[in-house]
Amino acid sequence: MERPRGTRDFLPEEMERRRRVEGAMRATALSFGYGEVQTPTFEHTDLFVARSGEAVVEEMYVFQDKGGRSLALRPELTAAVMRMYASDLTHAPKPLRLFYSGPCFRYERPQKGRYREFFQFGAELIGSPTPEADAEIIALAVRCIESAGLCGTVVRIGHVGALRAVLEWAGVTGPLSARAFPLIDKGETQGLEELLMDHVPRERLEALVEYVTAAGGAEVVGRARAAFAAVPKAVEHLARLEEALGHLSHYRDVLCTVHLGIARGLDYYTGVVFEVDYPGLGAEKQVCGGGAYELGQVFGLKEVPATGFAIGLDRVVLAAGEAAAAGGGTPAERAREGAVVVPMDRSGAVMALAVEAAEAVRAAGLRAELEVLRRPVGKALKAADEQRLRWAVIVGTDEAARGEVALKDLVSGEQRRVPLGDIAAAMGR
Amino acid sequence: MERPRGTRDFLPEEMERRRRVEGAMRATALSFGYGEVQTPTFEHTDLFVARSGEAVVEEMYVFQDKGGRSLALRPELTAAVMRMYASDLTHAPKPLRLFYSGPCFRYERPQKGRYREFFQFGAELIGSPTPEADAEIIALAVRCIESAGLCGTVVRIGHVGALRAVLEWAGVTGPLSARAFPLIDKGETQGLEELLMDHVPRERLEALVEYVTAAGGAEVVGRARAAFAAVPKAVEHLARLEEALGHLSHYRDVLCTVHLGIARGLDYYTGVVFEVDYPGLGAEKQVCGGGAYELGQVFGLKEVPATGFAIGLDRVVLAAGEAAAAGGGTPAERAREGAVVVPMDRSGAVMALAVEAAEAVRAAGLRAELEVLRRPVGKALKAADEQRLRWAVIVGTDEAARGEVALKDLVSGEQRRVPLGDIAAAMGR
Repeated sequence: MERPRGTRDFLPEEMERRRRVEGAMRATALSFGYGEVQTPTFEHTDLFVARSGEAVVEEMYVFQDKGGRSLALRPELTAAVMRMYASDLTHAPKPLRLFYSGPCFRYERPQKGRYREFFQFGAELIGSPTPEADAEIIALAVRCIESAGLCGTVVRIGHVGALRAVLEWAGVTGPLSARAFPLIDKGETQGLEELLMDHVPRERLEALVEYVTAAGGAEVVGRARAAFAAVPKAVEHLARLEEALGHLSHYRDVLCTVHLGIARGLDYYTGVVFEVDYPGLGAEKQVCGGGAYELGQVFGLKEVPATGFAIGLDRVVLAAGEAAAAGGGTPAERAREGAVVVPMDRSGAVMALAVEAAEAVRAAGLRAELEVLRRPVGKALKAADEQRLRWAVIVGTDEAARGEVALKDLVSGEQRRVPLGDIAAAMGR
Repeated sequence: MERPRGTRDFLPEEMERRRRVEGAMRATALSFGYGEVQTPTFEHTDLFVARSGEAVVEEMYVFQDKGGRSLALRPELTAAVMRMYASDLTHAPKPLRLFYSGPCFRYERPQKGRYREFFQFGAELIGSPTPEADAEIIALAVRCIESAGLCGTVVRIGHVGALRAVLEWAGVTGPLSARAFPLIDKGETQGLEELLMDHVPRERLEALVEYVTAAGGAEVVGRARAAFAAVPKAVEHLARLEEALGHLSHYRDVLCTVHLGIARGLDYYTGVVFEVDYPGLGAEKQVCGGGAYELGQVFGLKEVPATGFAIGLDRVVLAAGEAAAAGGGTPAERAREGAVVVPMDRSGAVMALAVEAAEAVRAAGLRAELEVLRRPVGKALKAADEQRLRWAVIVGTDEAARGEVALKDLVSGEQRRVPLGDIAAAMGR
């Protein structure tokens, strides 16, 4: 019986790493005042179509409800949070700060580093129209990634509204714009020029190409603003981007580069957009994407400015593992902790004391494993040593009669008698 | 756009409760030496059929893989852990202690307290054939439920092998036994008698009914052993149950009652079976079920004794909420904590200090929410008070020039100037 293709099992060691990363990100989001939410694993297929277009159906696991309605395993988490906002939270005080973490699903050929079931951690800041909000969500994304132990992330930032205004000015609209967007996003300048050369006057095409390839520090925005001074919408959006960059500069160690050609895959972004790279991951370096959008639009509500991000948890966990390994922290060097509790026989007095001792160790916040295979003491201790437990608590008839246990330090080999009540203290608790 | 029927959204307050319960259970399982694992959200449909029979297909969300293979959203978690064991862990050192937590799915009419997406927390102890193992897994289940804040749980314990032996002795086998099992499990004695009266001699039927309705303390097992002294298999199994009860008695405050008629729904149990009730929940009082089974059987491996349980997380969270409410801990009485950080204007100096102050509060382990709506100080403080934040950090031009902030205690109303470096200390950190 096999595991379905493109899915994974996580064994304890890996799972511990994942929980640590997720826990650190959760603590970071809470410290920024974000509250955790959770939505169902599947939604009505319509929801994802409304957000991402008909084509998304091909990339989802779709099935039927008893009532014949079409359901889909969620391919991402933002759409569901938007749906939740529209149904339950429109009257909640603004701004609303939400975060979430969970599995998402894509129906495609499995490739290296891409799974059919994958995990996202994300946040949305809903109801604030200010550039401070843009800056906060970007800083939160960076702080979450850092909390996993990744240093040296780089934020690439742009403005999709400004990009659209420039495209419009060049006469690139409708289906042509839809074909141009992915080429711009991937930086395929030559393909873009070939696509547009028969539709856009030479001068404007040159200006457009210069715009979408512009990258660097904050000064890039100023230059673009000067170059497109005649396009008021572009100027307005670029000023907003500049403001957001200003606010972002107050967050220490958040490294930002401007890339005016960032388009993001999805149509629904309207404002500042960004991607976060962890260069250590090479070709798979992008670990986060996000930006500002109009939440109300999808659901026909009144305008609700929103901004958010999604972090690819799998890539972050992978990178965190590599970063830790590079820092010399291999699993074998982890601190030894916890105890095996070995009853010498199965008599009531011995077992009672063994169980009490195990519970005392646990109450002290340490792990205690009861020997349940009835192995001889030597074998049980050898197994405990291999599992890197630190202590052995051995209980025999003699000890039981006195309410004492033999406590053995598996590292030093030292062994001594300890009254039941002193076990935790003897272990340094 | 609606949420699919039978599913739920969890808002921050509810989610916090869920995380607290899940976190407490996780810590408990870790303290017993169990390691967390995670399996995919869906599996090949065959896996669940192999474990639970063809009928299970009707109760699952089933869909097709690209390759045309049938997949199903998992209706429970044990089958997947068994599959994981069979593929990756057969050579791991025994005993293997694993736990897991996650969503499961059932395809049925939604009812009160039953959802199409529900959450289980469970554990498996694999590779130990001893009654100590039975006792440990039951104690762990109880300790996990207690860790959520539920006191006064009651374990109902029986032995499905003994029950089968008694049924065989009465001549109840094959399809007849399959029809008798659910009646026994639900305690429908009259229905059971009607079903069996034409097949089982009167005397044996009476003995059988007495057996399946026997309930009480450990003495119940002794009486049944005497009554069925002529059925060696029953005697052997009952002796095992008695041993498990003996070991269980060493765990403090684990209240156990014997119910020889516990059959559990699933065919695959072979040994000690148990259910844990939290009487405070009334008709929905059962919060956990589990027992011993033969793991190898399903996968055609050599014999592997295993025992495990699944806790219904939804019911435990519900009960924990009610228990906390009964104890007087309403949300409004929660300790106030965290700070709102209010910049008086958007100038560089003021914003820089505001962001630095927010980051300092977060670094101290407290929540800091930056005012991103540009509300006047009065309004921002009122909103913070309604959200039960404890502090306001107010930054104006004057303060910024001196590297100080105005720190206001939203409970006492007291306000004073504090240098940036002293904020955390001034908040008692």
